[in-house]
Amino acid sequence: MNLENYRMAHDKYVKLQDFPTSEGKTQENDKIKEEVIPLLVEKLKDLHLRLNAEEKDGILVVLQALDAAGKDETISYIFSNLNAQGLKTTTFGKPTEVEQKHDYLWRMQPAIPSRGEIGILNRSHYEDVIAPRIHGGLSAGDIPKGEDENSIWSLRYRQINDYEKYLYENGIHVIKFFFNMSKEEQKNRLLERMKTPDKNWEFSFSDVEERQYWNQYQEVFEEMLNETSTDYSPWYVLPADDEWHSRRLVNEIMIQLLEKLDPKFPEFTGEDKDKLKEYIDKLENE
Amino acid sequence: MNLENYRMAHDKYVKLQDFPTSEGKTQENDKIKEEVIPLLVEKLKDLHLRLNAEEKDGILVVLQALDAAGKDETISYIFSNLNAQGLKTTTFGKPTEVEQKHDYLWRMQPAIPSRGEIGILNRSHYEDVIAPRIHGGLSAGDIPKGEDENSIWSLRYRQINDYEKYLYENGIHVIKFFFNMSKEEQKNRLLERMKTPDKNWEFSFSDVEERQYWNQYQEVFEEMLNETSTDYSPWYVLPADDEWHSRRLVNEIMIQLLEKLDPKFPEFTGEDKDKLKEYIDKLENE
Repeated sequence: MNLENYRMAHDKYVKLQDFPTSEGKTQENDKIKEEVIPLLVEKLKDLHLRLNAEEKDGILVVLQALDAAGKDETISYIFSNLNAQGLKTTTFGKPTEVEQKHDYLWRMQPAIPSRGEIGILNRSHYEDVIAPRIHGGLSAGDIPKGEDENSIWSLRYRQINDYEKYLYENGIHVIKFFFNMSKEEQKNRLLERMKTPDKNWEFSFSDVEERQYWNQYQEVFEEMLNETSTDYSPWYVLPADDEWHSRRLVNEIMIQLLEKLDPKFPEFTGEDKDKLKEYIDKLENE
Repeated sequence: MNLENYRMAHDKYVKLQDFPTSEGKTQENDKIKEEVIPLLVEKLKDLHLRLNAEEKDGILVVLQALDAAGKDETISYIFSNLNAQGLKTTTFGKPTEVEQKHDYLWRMQPAIPSRGEIGILNRSHYEDVIAPRIHGGLSAGDIPKGEDENSIWSLRYRQINDYEKYLYENGIHVIKFFFNMSKEEQKNRLLERMKTPDKNWEFSFSDVEERQYWNQYQEVFEEMLNETSTDYSPWYVLPADDEWHSRRLVNEIMIQLLEKLDPKFPEFTGEDKDKLKEYIDKLENE
């Protein structure tokens, strides 16, 4: 499986339509779930444990998509297998009154992982180049002198790229997943939530209402993905109609990143190694 | 299994020695791990999902013990099975310079779960009635007028009880586990960490050094457990030498608490129920 096929280029403009919403893998769901994922999860767990022990690099995982595209399930079925120590999940909703009074990256701070941690963002700072573009709502303070409601998005892309570069240069690697789902598949998934009482709580009326902006959203996503996929912080576009296949891809792409970082359990060296021997003697002869 | 046997009374003084450090269950480790725990974990996962969906109650889990007693492993093998959304883990170390300038409960704030969440504390505010009692280090600001270094502990017990009552009255249930380990068992576990290179990072020299205060720690623990086990926020004392048996107990006690809270998936009612039907029609006939 060539993971590069799912990576949004950082040096040329790619149409979102060039990425499939399905690769016809839904019939393999059971096989992927029961045979492939368990092994991948074990590998990811081991790498996470090393990352956490070494405390050298941190990873910030961005999950972005429309409702029902698979963000929550990726957290449930992939990331939730990791050790709860060294993992934190943050869900971003509509900005609160307090958050709106701040610059838009302000609310990210508590969600940023420390070195050794994996932080998961269920929605993220990318909402700030999506939601206000569809629905408006920027305040005067959001738009600096010389910019307007059209030019602000390019400005924000640059700011976001700078922010993610800063994080990267300080040991926090930002990796981004976009769940590319078809309109038909969303319809089926929403109907299932609506018709199953135990799943009603996952549904809100706005999920249906937002479908009228489907095409606008696709345009916004395409520009956003192109403008903010960088060599240090790439976007991966997943065929989200294939649910288990997408989760598998997230798992494999995470492993690829972690293997590149190659975290190691710290060992005692030099004087500490001698001290360790001395302490073993001391304890054994207590 | 009568879980009440492990609960520290809130209405009479109990000696820590009356709680066994082992119930001879280590020979059952494999059976508990492979046959008992998976079913208990599934039950806990389901209850946590409901808690998270309902957003009515939150749970704060306190894990306290000396090093190598099993706090981290309980997080790895029990709590890490839960959905990462609605779970957060906070590890408390020696207070930082900034933390020391504040009242001792100040640093708890980011670790408190929201309603719907389970928050795990790997060590906690209880360190503030343990560590300074063994090693000193209270500042003048810690001791109010009329109190001294002897009376401050009773004062803190009352403050902690008040704090946990406040949380309880606001829907956050504090449940506390003390891992009661024998000195011999700690020795074996520390030696294993010291002799296994991949586990070295879990060991620090102070773990051995602290053993000289073993008896003082036991006295401090006994008083703390007696003074802060309340009807609304009990301590459970686990036979920590039996590692899988202890983890099983944590799992069962958590299930017991959650079953008492009885969280339910929210469903649509009244006008919203009609609106849901209307939206299903709308979506099906799109």
